[in-house]
Amino acid sequence: MDSDLDKLVDAVASRVRLRLAGEMRKSPCCASREECSGEGLCAARRADDVALIRDSGACRVGAAPGIGQVRGDLAAAIDHTLLKPDATREDLKKLCDEAKRYGFASVCVNSANVRVVKEMLRGSPVMAVAVVGFPLGAMSTQAKAFEAREAVRMGADEIDMVINIGALKSREYAQVEEDIRAVVQASRPHPVKVILETGALSQEEKIIGCALSRAAGAAFVKTSTGFGPGGATVEDVALMRRVVGDEMGVKASGGVRSTEDAEKMMKAGATRIGASASVAIVGGKNGKASGGKY
Amino acid sequence: MDSDLDKLVDAVASRVRLRLAGEMRKSPCCASREECSGEGLCAARRADDVALIRDSGACRVGAAPGIGQVRGDLAAAIDHTLLKPDATREDLKKLCDEAKRYGFASVCVNSANVRVVKEMLRGSPVMAVAVVGFPLGAMSTQAKAFEAREAVRMGADEIDMVINIGALKSREYAQVEEDIRAVVQASRPHPVKVILETGALSQEEKIIGCALSRAAGAAFVKTSTGFGPGGATVEDVALMRRVVGDEMGVKASGGVRSTEDAEKMMKAGATRIGASASVAIVGGKNGKASGGKY
Repeated sequence: MDSDLDKLVDAVASRVRLRLAGEMRKSPCCASREECSGEGLCAARRADDVALIRDSGACRVGAAPGIGQVRGDLAAAIDHTLLKPDATREDLKKLCDEAKRYGFASVCVNSANVRVVKEMLRGSPVMAVAVVGFPLGAMSTQAKAFEAREAVRMGADEIDMVINIGALKSREYAQVEEDIRAVVQASRPHPVKVILETGALSQEEKIIGCALSRAAGAAFVKTSTGFGPGGATVEDVALMRRVVGDEMGVKASGGVRSTEDAEKMMKAGATRIGASASVAIVGGKNGKASGGKY
Repeated sequence: MDSDLDKLVDAVASRVRLRLAGEMRKSPCCASREECSGEGLCAARRADDVALIRDSGACRVGAAPGIGQVRGDLAAAIDHTLLKPDATREDLKKLCDEAKRYGFASVCVNSANVRVVKEMLRGSPVMAVAVVGFPLGAMSTQAKAFEAREAVRMGADEIDMVINIGALKSREYAQVEEDIRAVVQASRPHPVKVILETGALSQEEKIIGCALSRAAGAAFVKTSTGFGPGGATVEDVALMRRVVGDEMGVKASGGVRSTEDAEKMMKAGATRIGASASVAIVGGKNGKASGGKY
């Protein structure tokens, strides 16, 4: 009886995972929760629905043999991240293997590595995310847009760009918005996340950064690069969610290293988590610090 | 008598400065010391000759009213650097004003800021240097080359690119060389410096990085971004000079904050210094740390 139930649950879990993964692949565009009709990054953005599915019986959504206590709802919201410039092929292989094994939403890498991870991920529902203008955001707009276009050409499913922090601080808001818009246009139809580097910004600058991201057509705002000062905080995530509303995603990244960290971020309004300690997060453990002085 | 001598020295110093600056503008290509026929970045690369000029009577080369004890030979070898992503227009204006006032070789900025500093430097011999693929070097080759081309189009006189560190560590030497070559070609006829990020490399990797930079047609090798682990060391500068020979430039950057630091680097073989504490360096003072977690 238990064994049959287990099989049934596994079958349900497997179908749900495939369905969610399929939806992710179908259309990466951003849909509001109210108007959602099967498109959008549901697994990542509709954490509540995923929780509902789980709570309705598929209590092992995202589980797969041999993983142990995987937090399926968390796994599907995690961009499994490796941005250290000294990352080797071997490191990238490990990253992709883990993403496939644990059912992470994506692997997030530097644009030089998109092609190779895309190849490594072939046949799996895991997406490739490329960072652009990373981590300073101080690259010229044309160069950022070109980097994004190239990354998409090489297989990137999503683009995480860094906002022009200096222009934001100089109150060159039109320039900041054009910078984002150029990357959004170059990446179409793939969604763009705008990294604000919240730890370097004042409260007002965070709010303005969110508003300009929304105005420029970005799909997500994202807290931190992991290379700058500070990381994701519950307060910043809640603020960003308030400013962008329900139609956009919010990605918490930088210093998210445990299940508890991740859950706090999701509760504050995050729909995606960027982490290198992803395996520890879904396994209920604490991961070690990374980023910074790589 | 003293006053006349002062006037004469000032006139000589002024002419020498103009001449050196003119040579810098005429052709930025790399000429060997032996074969030099008036082209090349003499002020920066021929520190010995500049010292000779100074020692031969123009003891105040590079001096200008009101500066005090300026080290003219050092000033002409310094790329006055501001790469923090939160740099404002005002910060860039100060950087350019200082570069003009102290006779630095250039200002070194992120590619988003090339256009504005070029405008600020108009009518002066100070060059604009743009960093590319900065600071991780993990951008796709096409994107790095595009960023370099755009920077040159916006007025960059020199390009400082970051090597693909991960590819170097993965022994993908052909890829590393092609990455550099693409930037060199995109930047022609402007010289390219290759930042090795020595603090992240083994001894062998430093040597290989120098050799590949030379093979790919770079004009300089450069130690550090200032955002990675470690900075310029006397040992690394000496090693780099040995590997690239006399025809190429060596730029010491990262943690160079005092006259003493700068002089040690020049003695070890550096022909250019990258520093944000440039004013302190030429004034015989110690500057404070910058870079890192900006």
